[in-house]
Amino acid sequence: MLLCYDGDMTLLDGKKLAQKIITDIKEEVAGMNKHLRLAVVVVGNDPVVQKFIAQKRKIAEQIGVDFKIYPFEETVSARDLRARVAEIVHEKKNTGVIIQLPLPSHIGKQHMLNAIVPDKDVDVLSSRAIGNVVVGKSPVISPVAGAVKALFDEYGIQCAGKRIVIMGNGALVGKPVALWLLSERVGFSIIDEGTPDVSALIGDADIIISGIGKSGFITGAMIKEGVIIIDAGTSEQNGKFAGDVDFESASKKASFITPVPGGVGPVTVAMLFKNLVELAKQ
Amino acid sequence: MLLCYDGDMTLLDGKKLAQKIITDIKEEVAGMNKHLRLAVVVVGNDPVVQKFIAQKRKIAEQIGVDFKIYPFEETVSARDLRARVAEIVHEKKNTGVIIQLPLPSHIGKQHMLNAIVPDKDVDVLSSRAIGNVVVGKSPVISPVAGAVKALFDEYGIQCAGKRIVIMGNGALVGKPVALWLLSERVGFSIIDEGTPDVSALIGDADIIISGIGKSGFITGAMIKEGVIIIDAGTSEQNGKFAGDVDFESASKKASFITPVPGGVGPVTVAMLFKNLVELAKQ
Repeated sequence: MLLCYDGDMTLLDGKKLAQKIITDIKEEVAGMNKHLRLAVVVVGNDPVVQKFIAQKRKIAEQIGVDFKIYPFEETVSARDLRARVAEIVHEKKNTGVIIQLPLPSHIGKQHMLNAIVPDKDVDVLSSRAIGNVVVGKSPVISPVAGAVKALFDEYGIQCAGKRIVIMGNGALVGKPVALWLLSERVGFSIIDEGTPDVSALIGDADIIISGIGKSGFITGAMIKEGVIIIDAGTSEQNGKFAGDVDFESASKKASFITPVPGGVGPVTVAMLFKNLVELAKQ
Repeated sequence: MLLCYDGDMTLLDGKKLAQKIITDIKEEVAGMNKHLRLAVVVVGNDPVVQKFIAQKRKIAEQIGVDFKIYPFEETVSARDLRARVAEIVHEKKNTGVIIQLPLPSHIGKQHMLNAIVPDKDVDVLSSRAIGNVVVGKSPVISPVAGAVKALFDEYGIQCAGKRIVIMGNGALVGKPVALWLLSERVGFSIIDEGTPDVSALIGDADIIISGIGKSGFITGAMIKEGVIIIDAGTSEQNGKFAGDVDFESASKKASFITPVPGGVGPVTVAMLFKNLVELAKQ
């Protein structure tokens, strides 16, 4: 357990934790009397998206669950896609279903996500699954929130008594993390555009969880000594992925910090498969 | 619109606003080609609960919608109650259904609330209705959040650029207000037990929305000049209802403040009926 800050910095090694989770899941899957399959709905063939999918496929193979891609043309109509997603969801062999985001702009994202029933919704993005999380009646939480929780558990970081600041209110990071903390009855501050005095909030924070997608936004000068930084931001910089935190300056003051890559990302993917297993057990 | 604080205090007159909303709804209901009925599931006969129900009945009569009580004995089993609630929900004449809270401790509250389908869930307490609010796909929001929004609209109070603090994370005030702000992408801080430096958060707040149920918890000494105070707390003091705010001291520093009674309460009841109408229009 973290008692007080002694000036040391600990790297929150997401790659290592992800491997540990994957090893645990593999064992659990081997002992199940049920075959698991993750169905992945993919629209278009953006190379970045293909890279994300390849990562997930690799882990599926490691764990020993089937991984089935349902590819669609970029030009598929919303109506046709929704009808097919409904069929994919109801296919018994698919024990979990994800819709790879982003979707083309002519397709209503939430309408499509809502076609996934909560007991196959491993990404926890349908409105029904989200509602279950809020009222405390869900066996799973969003993979990114699960990743933050897993990192906290692994490194003995406790939320109670800490000033927690969530940067950004996006559907993929800020909002699910906020819903998780709400359901856990942990207080926090969430920063969105229009929030005043952001620098004071960031400067006073004991824990910063960031998902704004602005490369290098959080610098060492903005934070206090001993802060815990979870960088779940994703932006692209010259073909490379970057987080929200300027690691070089921030890591000099943080007591715990996630690198990018190798921090929240791999744990989030591992938690997706953990959700697949949890939902299959229900 | 509120531009700057000039030292004056404006009472947020919930009674007056509620009457205005009720008059608008009455007109709207008169023009509808559909008869509305609010079904109220009541377990036991606690005198305080009966008082709340009488208030709602009075407003239903004013508006011209039917009000049907389904009474149950305190000893009803969870299984029987759930089965009956499902029937009540599916009764076509009931265009809205509420379950009067609190329920006896042997009955799982959320399980019962989840029997209400979103298009009849005027209290917005089922997990499905809550999920719809979070993803921005709900025609209604929780009555208490709707009451805060209506008070802000009526008095020209804007959230943008303000430090908003929600006191408490209960299912009836803090959580629904937080979900509303999340869905509006407005930043805020939410305080729960274990939140550190509560006095700094309260002292810096531009807007305080309180629902902790601790009579007189927020005093004038804790707040800054010009703060806007929405007191949605409810506690009982010698048979009288009290809010969370020590009105006498706080009103000397606030620019806007709700009294208790006559503040958030009556607007919340009016918004319940506004939700009934909104859902009937869908």
